[in-house]
Amino acid sequence: MVNKTLKSFTEKKSAASVSAKKKVVRPGLSRSPAMSNLIEHAKDIYGDIKNGRRPSLTIPIRSLTNVSFSLRKGFFTIGDRVSKRTLSYQTIKPFAQTVRMMAFAKYLIKTDDFASKREVYYTAKGSAKRGVETGQAGWGPASFKEQDESDAIMDDMEAMVGINREQLGFIPAEQNGSVAGELMVIDIDPATGRKIEIDCTAFGRGSYSIPSRVEGLEFRTRAKFVIVVETAALFERLNGHAYWKEGNCIIVAMGGVPTRANRRFVRLLSDSCKLPVYVFTDGDPYGYGNIYRTMKVGSGNAAHINEFFCVPQAKLIGVTPQDIRDYNLPTHPLEEKDKKRAQDAIKNDPFFKNNKQWVLALQDMIKMGVRVEQQAFAARGLNYVMETYLPEKLRNPSKMLP
Amino acid sequence: MVNKTLKSFTEKKSAASVSAKKKVVRPGLSRSPAMSNLIEHAKDIYGDIKNGRRPSLTIPIRSLTNVSFSLRKGFFTIGDRVSKRTLSYQTIKPFAQTVRMMAFAKYLIKTDDFASKREVYYTAKGSAKRGVETGQAGWGPASFKEQDESDAIMDDMEAMVGINREQLGFIPAEQNGSVAGELMVIDIDPATGRKIEIDCTAFGRGSYSIPSRVEGLEFRTRAKFVIVVETAALFERLNGHAYWKEGNCIIVAMGGVPTRANRRFVRLLSDSCKLPVYVFTDGDPYGYGNIYRTMKVGSGNAAHINEFFCVPQAKLIGVTPQDIRDYNLPTHPLEEKDKKRAQDAIKNDPFFKNNKQWVLALQDMIKMGVRVEQQAFAARGLNYVMETYLPEKLRNPSKMLP
Repeated sequence: MVNKTLKSFTEKKSAASVSAKKKVVRPGLSRSPAMSNLIEHAKDIYGDIKNGRRPSLTIPIRSLTNVSFSLRKGFFTIGDRVSKRTLSYQTIKPFAQTVRMMAFAKYLIKTDDFASKREVYYTAKGSAKRGVETGQAGWGPASFKEQDESDAIMDDMEAMVGINREQLGFIPAEQNGSVAGELMVIDIDPATGRKIEIDCTAFGRGSYSIPSRVEGLEFRTRAKFVIVVETAALFERLNGHAYWKEGNCIIVAMGGVPTRANRRFVRLLSDSCKLPVYVFTDGDPYGYGNIYRTMKVGSGNAAHINEFFCVPQAKLIGVTPQDIRDYNLPTHPLEEKDKKRAQDAIKNDPFFKNNKQWVLALQDMIKMGVRVEQQAFAARGLNYVMETYLPEKLRNPSKMLP
Repeated sequence: MVNKTLKSFTEKKSAASVSAKKKVVRPGLSRSPAMSNLIEHAKDIYGDIKNGRRPSLTIPIRSLTNVSFSLRKGFFTIGDRVSKRTLSYQTIKPFAQTVRMMAFAKYLIKTDDFASKREVYYTAKGSAKRGVETGQAGWGPASFKEQDESDAIMDDMEAMVGINREQLGFIPAEQNGSVAGELMVIDIDPATGRKIEIDCTAFGRGSYSIPSRVEGLEFRTRAKFVIVVETAALFERLNGHAYWKEGNCIIVAMGGVPTRANRRFVRLLSDSCKLPVYVFTDGDPYGYGNIYRTMKVGSGNAAHINEFFCVPQAKLIGVTPQDIRDYNLPTHPLEEKDKKRAQDAIKNDPFFKNNKQWVLALQDMIKMGVRVEQQAFAARGLNYVMETYLPEKLRNPSKMLP
């Protein structure tokens, strides 16, 4: 029930913000489905207690035994198996912790504040006794010895309410990638509370750094596609020569494996503006299996939130094994661990093994015994990558690896 | 001689751009001291050959035996010992590589282009034979087997010409930190070549991502100080609540040990706008010894460029060992490696051991046997760090650790 409500909200939001011209009002988090969802769960608990029943929490099982890859949806999803945490002498601590965590989320949503995992851990540890309603007091006996414990409770709660925890005010504390190009980001000025527009063509050599909180951001663009690049050096090259102007696109730097905020940003952007996403990684099993795959389908370990973070619109623009031949690129030998990673992907990874094009590409790479880097195009000239390679690849998106 | 010319340029530039109101013209890199410096070195070689002498390159020795900590200057400096690389049968390869690297730098400066270390390595490997003047051809027998080789040649050249290699067009390929607050960054729009102003108060929850190329950036600000923070989570907190407005400051995120571009950015900003820099790290030997010390005095391994990257204006605002007591903060026990790092700093690190306040602080930490994190303030309330702690510390900059 709850999940349905949420999904329809997500879909509605996407549809509403498709037209770049239309004015879209950002929903305050307090009117968000996150809040009603939290309250719904709290009411269940309260109802149980009032009616003399022992209250319980129903939490989807997050272990890999309850995860499957949905070919239809194109990402890892969590199954139907749940664990029921009924209040008892044994479960009182995690039960109390979950409820406190819910109250804290409510506080964060209400006050439009936010907290990193580490801050949550410390908040619980605090000695200030300002009561539940401030959301800020020490949690007394419900505090955590180590952050592992609070992280697990947070993951449970995230799975229970069925939305990504960022919508509950919990933020990842990572340095995210950055953005340059034909894009207006619409946000709220934290100093004035007014709506502002951020023009991603106006940063010179610099760029717009993706914040940890991307929920509620809106976008306006006339770009034709989003290109997501693995390395900082390539981003610098494309942005330093304003490739976004010529290519009429939005360039996103990942800086390696994309963070949660980076993935969510690309997903929201692509959804709301109906843009294709082309991912540009090094041509090696790590680039394909860890970076591209994470961006496109998420991971089995976080199946309960993949629907918010995966980017099913993504395709791999390069560097492909075939590019090595087509562009006569310098390579490096595949190491044993690279080969193992590729073989493992073909054999065991449901995303790769169910996809003929990917199986052939990975087999091709193993056979050639080499890997190739994004920077290798420099052997054909410093700006060859943007003057020749990308335009050629962009002529045939249907040929890109899916 | 060359070094002197450069230094006076640097000083002149700083002085000229002190007044935030004055219009400062960004020097094109082709009119930069880097270019004249390169040409001066090339002329020496050319002169030698013309006069029937074997040409030679004079390169400062970069090993630690030729590095000392200058108490007066406040950073690691390189000594007078040099190695002379005279052209001979044995040295012909590195000699040729150095000269090709110089020609490539000239090309980059002339065309206002840039290259990462990895791109340089691949450029040399290239098969395109477009001649030296394009700067882009394969270097034939002067190409490199591994990137180690090209990196070493680049470091040598950097030390030889006596300026940081970014001024020669070589960029570090790292993801840098970001900036929010009362600052206008003045840059050139890569799409139009026109001057643009980037308003760092106008990015909502997002921020300005520091580019790899910061040479030539200019700044205008009315802020009173720069605060440089270690963690992404704290940056998000300060920026998410527009602390820069209340504090009238510029907030810079480092994301761990600051990159070259991050350090250079803070240095240029602090120099040109005469702003104090307050660094805010976790309270542990790693935060002090690796993050703060790198920002303030650079490292012995890169002594030949420290004068461009160190930030002598920096002070440590926190978290100090004394803060643990003053603010009753939750802590974690020091691990054995933390203790060793602190003891090593007191005993062997010329920056720390010559500074009584630092010796006392480190001894204090070892004695307490604990470390403290930036996020620990959350135990006193989520925004305590910005509502109470920072204002209190800012009242007495003279009490900050130097």
